[in-house]
Formats: sequence, structure tokens, C-alpha cells
Amino acid sequence: MKIGAQYRGGGRCSFSLFAPFPELIDVKILCGEDKIIPMEKGQGGYWKLRLNNVYPGTKYFYRLNGAVLRPDPASNCQPEGVDGPSEIIDHNKFRWQDGGWEGVPAGKMVIYELHVGAFSDKGDFDSIVHRLDELKDLGINAIEIMPIGQFSGDRNWGYDGVYPFAVQNSYGRPDEFKRLVNEAHKRGFAVILDVVYDHAGPEGNYFSDFGPYFDGRNKTPHGNAFNFDGAFGNEVRNFFIQNALYWFDVFHIDALRLDADVLYGISAKPFLEELSEKTAQLSKKKNKKFLLTAESKLNDARLTRPRPEGLGFDAQWCNDFHHAIHALLTKEKNGYYIDFGSYRHFKKAFKRGFVYLWEYSNFRRHRYGSSCSDTPPERLVVFSQNHDQVGNRPDGGRLSGIVPFEALKLSAAAVLLSPYIPLLFMGEEYAEESPFLYFVSHSDPKLLEAVRRGRIEEYSSFLLPEDIKSFLRSKLKWEKRREGKNKILLNFYRELIGLRPNEEEKAAKTIEDFQRLNLLVCNYRKMVCVMSFNIKEKSIRLKLPPGNWKKILDSSEKKWAGPGNDLAGFVADGDRINVKPLSVVVYKA
Amino acid sequence: MKIGAQYRGGGRCSFSLFAPFPELIDVKILCGEDKIIPMEKGQGGYWKLRLNNVYPGTKYFYRLNGAVLRPDPASNCQPEGVDGPSEIIDHNKFRWQDGGWEGVPAGKMVIYELHVGAFSDKGDFDSIVHRLDELKDLGINAIEIMPIGQFSGDRNWGYDGVYPFAVQNSYGRPDEFKRLVNEAHKRGFAVILDVVYDHAGPEGNYFSDFGPYFDGRNKTPHGNAFNFDGAFGNEVRNFFIQNALYWFDVFHIDALRLDADVLYGISAKPFLEELSEKTAQLSKKKNKKFLLTAESKLNDARLTRPRPEGLGFDAQWCNDFHHAIHALLTKEKNGYYIDFGSYRHFKKAFKRGFVYLWEYSNFRRHRYGSSCSDTPPERLVVFSQNHDQVGNRPDGGRLSGIVPFEALKLSAAAVLLSPYIPLLFMGEEYAEESPFLYFVSHSDPKLLEAVRRGRIEEYSSFLLPEDIKSFLRSKLKWEKRREGKNKILLNFYRELIGLRPNEEEKAAKTIEDFQRLNLLVCNYRKMVCVMSFNIKEKSIRLKLPPGNWKKILDSSEKKWAGPGNDLAGFVADGDRINVKPLSVVVYKA
Repeated sequence: MKIGAQYRGGGRCSFSLFAPFPELIDVKILCGEDKIIPMEKGQGGYWKLRLNNVYPGTKYFYRLNGAVLRPDPASNCQPEGVDGPSEIIDHNKFRWQDGGWEGVPAGKMVIYELHVGAFSDKGDFDSIVHRLDELKDLGINAIEIMPIGQFSGDRNWGYDGVYPFAVQNSYGRPDEFKRLVNEAHKRGFAVILDVVYDHAGPEGNYFSDFGPYFDGRNKTPHGNAFNFDGAFGNEVRNFFIQNALYWFDVFHIDALRLDADVLYGISAKPFLEELSEKTAQLSKKKNKKFLLTAESKLNDARLTRPRPEGLGFDAQWCNDFHHAIHALLTKEKNGYYIDFGSYRHFKKAFKRGFVYLWEYSNFRRHRYGSSCSDTPPERLVVFSQNHDQVGNRPDGGRLSGIVPFEALKLSAAAVLLSPYIPLLFMGEEYAEESPFLYFVSHSDPKLLEAVRRGRIEEYSSFLLPEDIKSFLRSKLKWEKRREGKNKILLNFYRELIGLRPNEEEKAAKTIEDFQRLNLLVCNYRKMVCVMSFNIKEKSIRLKLPPGNWKKILDSSEKKWAGPGNDLAGFVADGDRINVKPLSVVVYKA
Repeated sequence: MKIGAQYRGGGRCSFSLFAPFPELIDVKILCGEDKIIPMEKGQGGYWKLRLNNVYPGTKYFYRLNGAVLRPDPASNCQPEGVDGPSEIIDHNKFRWQDGGWEGVPAGKMVIYELHVGAFSDKGDFDSIVHRLDELKDLGINAIEIMPIGQFSGDRNWGYDGVYPFAVQNSYGRPDEFKRLVNEAHKRGFAVILDVVYDHAGPEGNYFSDFGPYFDGRNKTPHGNAFNFDGAFGNEVRNFFIQNALYWFDVFHIDALRLDADVLYGISAKPFLEELSEKTAQLSKKKNKKFLLTAESKLNDARLTRPRPEGLGFDAQWCNDFHHAIHALLTKEKNGYYIDFGSYRHFKKAFKRGFVYLWEYSNFRRHRYGSSCSDTPPERLVVFSQNHDQVGNRPDGGRLSGIVPFEALKLSAAAVLLSPYIPLLFMGEEYAEESPFLYFVSHSDPKLLEAVRRGRIEEYSSFLLPEDIKSFLRSKLKWEKRREGKNKILLNFYRELIGLRPNEEEKAAKTIEDFQRLNLLVCNYRKMVCVMSFNIKEKSIRLKLPPGNWKKILDSSEKKWAGPGNDLAGFVADGDRINVKPLSVVVYKA
């Protein structure tokens, strides 16, 4: 059941609204003299109205019980923000040029996560378009966009969205977002959109005036969870399933990324399973595979197992991989890093993805995870940085400010030479120095105070999220990538991406492990990657797997601003090589 | 990790307690002059103490932070109720006589659900023993005992228990419960125990003085749910997993019955899966299959699928089957009966168990259920009455007070001639007239007021749960089974149980369906059961499946206090028979 204002062309528009609470609902059209038209109450809590002679651009509210004016929960556009009227959008007028676009298979993706507002000075969709060619040149083939559902104010990470169908007005118009997707597709990029289906933001959150969108039974760290399993749960599910299909179908989005943990629910058919069923149906209908990816802290292999045994997701984030690298390189021991930090954590992460497979976590104080031996590598997304891992540090500091340059290159290699799906966080590829801070622009002072307190308590961050400086300081200094060490790192990333193992190589992967030396050799049969986390020895003498090898990359070379190395270009069978501390060396057969 | 006071013999006793909250814990032994012995804090929130020279029968408290005295959450005996001291029990002195007992396979069970207090005048375990032979004679081979964990006061359905390891003091001593199990096993009965792992009762509930047994994230209709997935969740799980193993191992219980819905949880390994893993491990160790059964309103086939795809339970209750029969026979339309009432619901229930397979329920206002086509019949427990379905009626009225005698026999046949596991509720076999009312004996007047209000709101019941009459009126009038129509029904039940289809017959089952006539023919190949829910026609002329058939049972005969029928004892191939309204006829080849 489609929801919201569906513009059919020729001045015809259908309104559909799930709102079992009000006794009476009208559509109020804002047109000089206001027009009030009653909706018709249908089955299952839905209200309907068909109008003629309304055109795209028309602003409207729903009027509840003859009194309260509210924007459409499924509004496609909130040009004046979360409290303003909704706007009727004509989704048929955009001229798509991505015919024949087939997407990028999950296993081939190199993902670049970005925040629209902080990615560029202008902070809009168009500015992303201007940088696509440079990302392409780097080897990126998928951009993952942090949530763009309309939120309160003009700056926010996006997880405070309250209109999941409306493109954030400070980022651009719906058609500008389409233009970004269109330009991305033309250049061979998949577009992944981060969506928030577990909770809604605090300001402009009028869901409960309409119906039991929340049932109060489940809470998330960010507010009440949506009601997917209680009375009217199917209609609330429909709201979000329609949202997913809307991004796929109307905006040509290739993949969604959900925070999955709190969406497990109590039902014979969990919401996540139904969402993946409906996504598969649309894929079939459109003859194009739409993907579902998830962030989950559970390490639950069931999430990406095919239905009906599993929930049918295409991939999930692997936080353990990040924590293993980060704790090993930084020696940090605070928070969840207490569960990581030794080379063997990294080895396990590199070998199988999850580190915790129903093992005890001292941080969580409980076991988590499940065996993932049946999880193919193209179902796990790995990273050494992302918006959370950077942005939730007290100072929003990036890895480049914490570890030496040699370690930066090594962490990039660990991600990009792994068999998993790599994800970069905007700017990491050239060691961006700007932090990624937490920023909001709510209007309620009490709420701001609560947000500040929350950041202090949870992340020991004393910065002011509402201070516009927190936002402005988070913006990328894109031009940096063209100079000095930043440029060197950028080139190094480009090299690594170029060396990504293909399917055949991944299948042939074997790991040789020198635990005492903190050194791992990943043998992809025709390519050998040596990653040394050693910091004790000046260099380690090592025999490569049998065969003759040609050196392709050595991070310790002066060329990569390294300390220098004297490795020969060719290594004959049985010869030993010298591996420098904190370095990566790649050989090809 | 075992918990509670483990008596090792020879005056040696080990105490083990999960209690991360207190800074200091002592064991206080009550022995004239009180002895206070400090416990030692170990790993993971556990406290330990080994004592010599303490003997079974010794009473003790835990003293928290040098001040508050509390019984042991894992107390094995609370002789003076929920606030009194715990008692050290020697579990090795009982002389078991059930060596070689192999249990009853789920698929062969005929279950009799009983409430210890209301089953007999004395309301204790011993009184059950005295009636076992009569249940045996009826054909019962499994008794399911409503919860016996120590609760506040001396009468309660059992779902207000607060010491899950302590046998309710008003029912008898731990060894008297063992005697019941022992006597049951000697007679070939399996013993199923109803356990409550999702919440605890309101009085005597001191869990939160010890540790995060509840984490406040999940609520059940009866209070906070136990913390199985948050910090210290593994230790809270252990408390209940140890409880399950304790009943199996120490009390020789054959099967547990859990309320499963709220135990789903958010984890890569749900509590239910871990419980079933640990139960399987004990089964292997003891070379005896211990069973897990569940009540669930979700109609989720995953519950009884083998691990790791499913949760590995052996059977689950099928409420839909009950609702289908009840609504069809009574024409009631209140509450969940609104989703049932037509013959086709019954047909579906009889054919496959679940009626709602992810279909929309008007009562719940959402879809529920999943396909159960891969669920074998021995994984579903069916009934036409049970403690909830009787006891949650405003007057606690049994089916015998609502439908005519002919319908009673038919409903019994629907359950007992089905391929599923039949469950009877104590007394239904002889049309017991006593109601089964809701009764409690809490001490707090405010709590009693809240309970009263709850019963009015949820069940429109204006009876007083705390009035001892509610308890006394619920007691069975056992002697009734020896007279008049009660005795006839009892004999009829015995006949039906004797006709239970075997595995081979179940596998051969086909259903022929006369929807317009409200008549179902279940052909077990060598046995044909005709169940007529027809009330319009005086009788229905019907051709049996091909073959010659011998009449075995006809509920409409005078012998069964029916209106009389003139069916021949033998039916030749192609002959038609007359089936009376609301009747069941059984033929054998």
C-alpha cells in the first residue's frame, strides 16, 4: 500500500495516510485562500483522498480532528523544515540517463561513506557530483550517503530524521538528489543510502498524533522503537517497507544500509525478513538486484543467510574488524577496545570477519556473536574508520591524528587487501585533518542540553554539538589531497584499490601467520600480501610461499613517504625478504 | 556454573551466588546463636563459600553489605515462604526407583495438565500420587504440572513464583515432589513441569538486590522480563539454564514447558537456543532425552525446528487449534475468538495445526504465524481446554458448562483423534463442574487491589482472586467421575485415547472435507474418523473411503448418552452411513 501524496500527472493526486487515531482528517491545501478537503476513512486505519487540479509544488497539511495541522508523515518534501507544510512532488519529470545500469555486485564494491553536509563547503548534493570523477579515479565504485531524511534544522548527522520520505531541505531538492544518483550511475557508482528504521528524531516527530507508530515496548538508545510487532504493526512495517521501495524505485538507489539490532522484534516473521522479501520482489519486477546492508553489533550470521533460514540481507558491517585494527595500532584500551588490542584479534578478523563468535566480551559483559563460517566474504563490510568510529571519539579525531603515517598505510591495506567489502570514510584516503564532530541544530534549548549531557556521558565529549563550529570544523578540506603526504596517501589508497583480490583470488585465500612477530601473510595464490604489525624488530626476514614473485607494492619505500627499504623487485623461490615494521608488501606471481 | 547451596555430604556444603551488586556478602547460618561467614567474591559477579559442619535442614540467609538479609535466589527450599530463610537440601538421599526409565516420546504423549493445589482437597504432591492409577487407567501417560516454584502465600496459579529452584512449601517438601515423579515414572508417566523464565512474581522478588537480573528493557504483561541479552545476561541465563538442568537432573523431570514469546531476545544466540543446546548436552550425558516444550502465541515454526536453523524445541502449544474448536462449538465472538468460529478454521487447524500462517488477525490487528508445513505433528500440543482457556474466562467456566454434551464428546475427539500431541486439563475428562478460577494469596493490599483491577480489565472477571473461596471452588470434585454422565464421558475419553493413531497411521493421514456440511473425514488408512460439526441437518448420509469398515465408536449412541443412532456395525465398500449432528464416528478396516 503506497503512502503519501502520489502525483499522477495532469493535476491528479492521490493521498494515502495511515492514521487510525484521529476521528476526522482533512487535507488542507495552502493556496492563498486555504482549501480544506475531508479524507475518507478506509480499511485498516488508512485514509484516502483523490484530488484533481492540484499540481506539483502545492503545499499541504493534514488537519487532524478539525484542529491540529500536521505535515504528512510520508511527505516527499519539507521545503520549510519539519514543521512546515509538505509539498507535492512529481517524480515523473526527472530525466534519468542511467538506463541499463546494472549496479555493482556487493562483492566488488569499494564503498566511500560520506555526509552530505560535511563533504563539501556548500554541503549539498550538487557538490558531491563535482567530486565524483576524483572518487572514480581513486577506484571507488559505491558511495554510501549518511541519512538524508528530513531532520530538524539544517545540520545533523541524519539519525534525527522525522520524515523518512523527504529529502533534507538543506541538502537540496528531491530532483537534485536524483541528479546525484543519476550522475553516480553514469560513472559506474552504486549509491547506498543509510536509512533509519528503528527510531525517529525528537523534533518534528508527530507520528503519535496519527497512530501507534510507536508502541512503547521497545526502546533504542535514541528513543522509542517503531512498532513492528504489536497492533497495527503491519501498517507501521508498510510505512518503512514502502520507504525502502521508494528509494529503490523512485530514486534508483542501489542499496540501503540499516541499523538492524533493534529491528529483530518478536514475530514469526521479523520486519527485517519481510523487508528483504519485499526487496527481492521489487528486484525481480525491475530485473535489477537491490541490496540490503545492515549495521549490527550482534555478529549474527543469520542476518545475511538466505531466507527462510536467515533474514536475507546482502551484507552487514563488521565492527570487530575495525576494533581489531584500531586497538592494535593505537593501543587504546577504553570502551570496547578493551576486548581487542592483540595481533591475534586482527588475525581472526582478517581470517573470518567476526572476532567474537559467542565469546565473552569484557566491555559488554556478555557473550556475543555466532559462528560465521558459512558467511562468504562478500557479506561483510569492513573499515578502519567510519562516521561512528571517528565521530564518537571525544574530539572527533581521525586515525591520521592518532597513529603514525606508516600505520595509516598499513590499516588501509588491511581493509583494502582483505577479502571483504571495504568501506572508507570520506577524507581518510588523504589523511584529512578535520575532525568529524557530532553536530545538531535542534531548536529546543532543553533538548540541546540533554544532547550535550548525552555526549558527555556516553562519549566524554565536551564539545557543543549545537555550535555551528562543530559542523564547520567537520567539513573536509578537499584541496589537501593535492599536496604533500596527503597526496602520497591518496596515491597509496589508489594502488591498494587497484590490487583488490578478485573472486578467484578470494576463493584461493590462505593465511600464514607469524603470531610472535605480529605478522600475517595472506596468500591469494597469484598475489601475496605481507602485513607486518611488528614494531619491535628493525625488520623481519621472511620466506615467501613457494614460487617466484614480483614486488608490486612496499609501503616502507621512500616513494610512499616510508623510512626506505631495499627489497629486490623479484624474489626467487626460497629467497627471504626483509619486512619493515608497520608495513605492507605485496607480491604478484 | 551451579548455583545455590550444594550439599556434598558429610557436612560439606558449597554456596554459589551470582550477585554483582553488593560489595560484601555473608552467609548467615541460623543456629541458635547466629553464625555469619563472609563469602568470597570471585570472577564475573559470583560469590563462593565452602562450609564444613553444616547439615541438611540448616536454614540460612545471605546478608548483603552487612545489613540486609535475603533468602537465596537459588534456594532449593523456603519452608517459611518467600521471606523466610532458605534451607539446605540433601538431594542425594532420595531413593529413586525409576532406573531404566526412558521417558515417553513426544509423539506418543497424552498429557494431563494439573494444578497441584486445586487437583485435590489436600492440594499436595502426595494426593496426586494417589490418583495416578486412575489416570493410567484413563490412558494418560504424561502429567504436566503447573509451576511449583515458591510463590508468596499458599495458593497461586504459580506464575508469581520468585524462587525458581524451591518447591512451593504449601505443596510439599522437595523429596515429596521427587516421590511424585518417582511414582509417576514407575507407572509409565512422563512428568512435564511448567517453568516461568520470563518474569518473576511481585512479592518476595529480591533479585534486583543481587544483580541485574532484570535490565528494564523488556517488559512482559506480568512484569519486567529477565535480562538475557544485556550486561551480565549470560549469568542471568545461567541461573535459568541451571534451573532447567536441575529439574531434569535432580528431580528426574522429563520435559519443561516454557512461556516462550518474551524470551526471543536480541542476540546472535537467543536464550531459547542456548537452553535447548544445554538440554541436549545433558540428554547426551545422561543418555535420556529431556524435552523442551513451549507455549507461544507467535505460531513460529522456527521454535521447533532443529538448531541451528531453529531454536530446537521439541514441541509447542497450538492455541489456534483450541480457538478453532472453541469458537466453532460455542459461537463466542469475544476477544481472540473473533478470528475463529467457522468450520474452515477447524479444518485448517486439524490439517496443519496453525490456522494463522502470517495472516491478518482482527483481534491482534496484525499478521501472525509462519508456514508450518515442515512441522511434524509430534511438535504441536493441542487441547480443547487448558488452565488459561478455562481460568481466564470471567467465571472460570469449563467447556462442560457452555456446550451440550454431544459437543463435549466431539471436542474431545477432535483433540484425541488428531495427529498432534493431545493435552487435557484436569477434570475435563469427566465434565468437572467446578470452575478453575484465578486465585492468589499475596499479602500486600495494594497489590491485591491491582490484581483485582487487572482481572477486571483484562478478563472482565469480577471475582476476588484473594478470596479463599476462589481457590476452594476451583478444586476438583474427583468423586464425580464415578457417576452418571460424568462417568460416561470418562469412559468415552478412555475409548478415544485407546484409538490414538500410531506413527504409521499419522503418516498416512488424508483429510476429506465436506465444508458445506461442516464435516471432516480423517482417513488414517486403517482407521477413519468422521467428525460432524453439523447442527442443521438431522443427519448426513455419507460414503466412507473405499473398503469394508467396522464401526468402533459412535458418540451419538445411547451408550454414550447420545440421542441414539442406527449405524450398522459393518459397512461394506460403497455403502453410505448416517452421521448425526455434533457427533464423531470411528471405523477400522
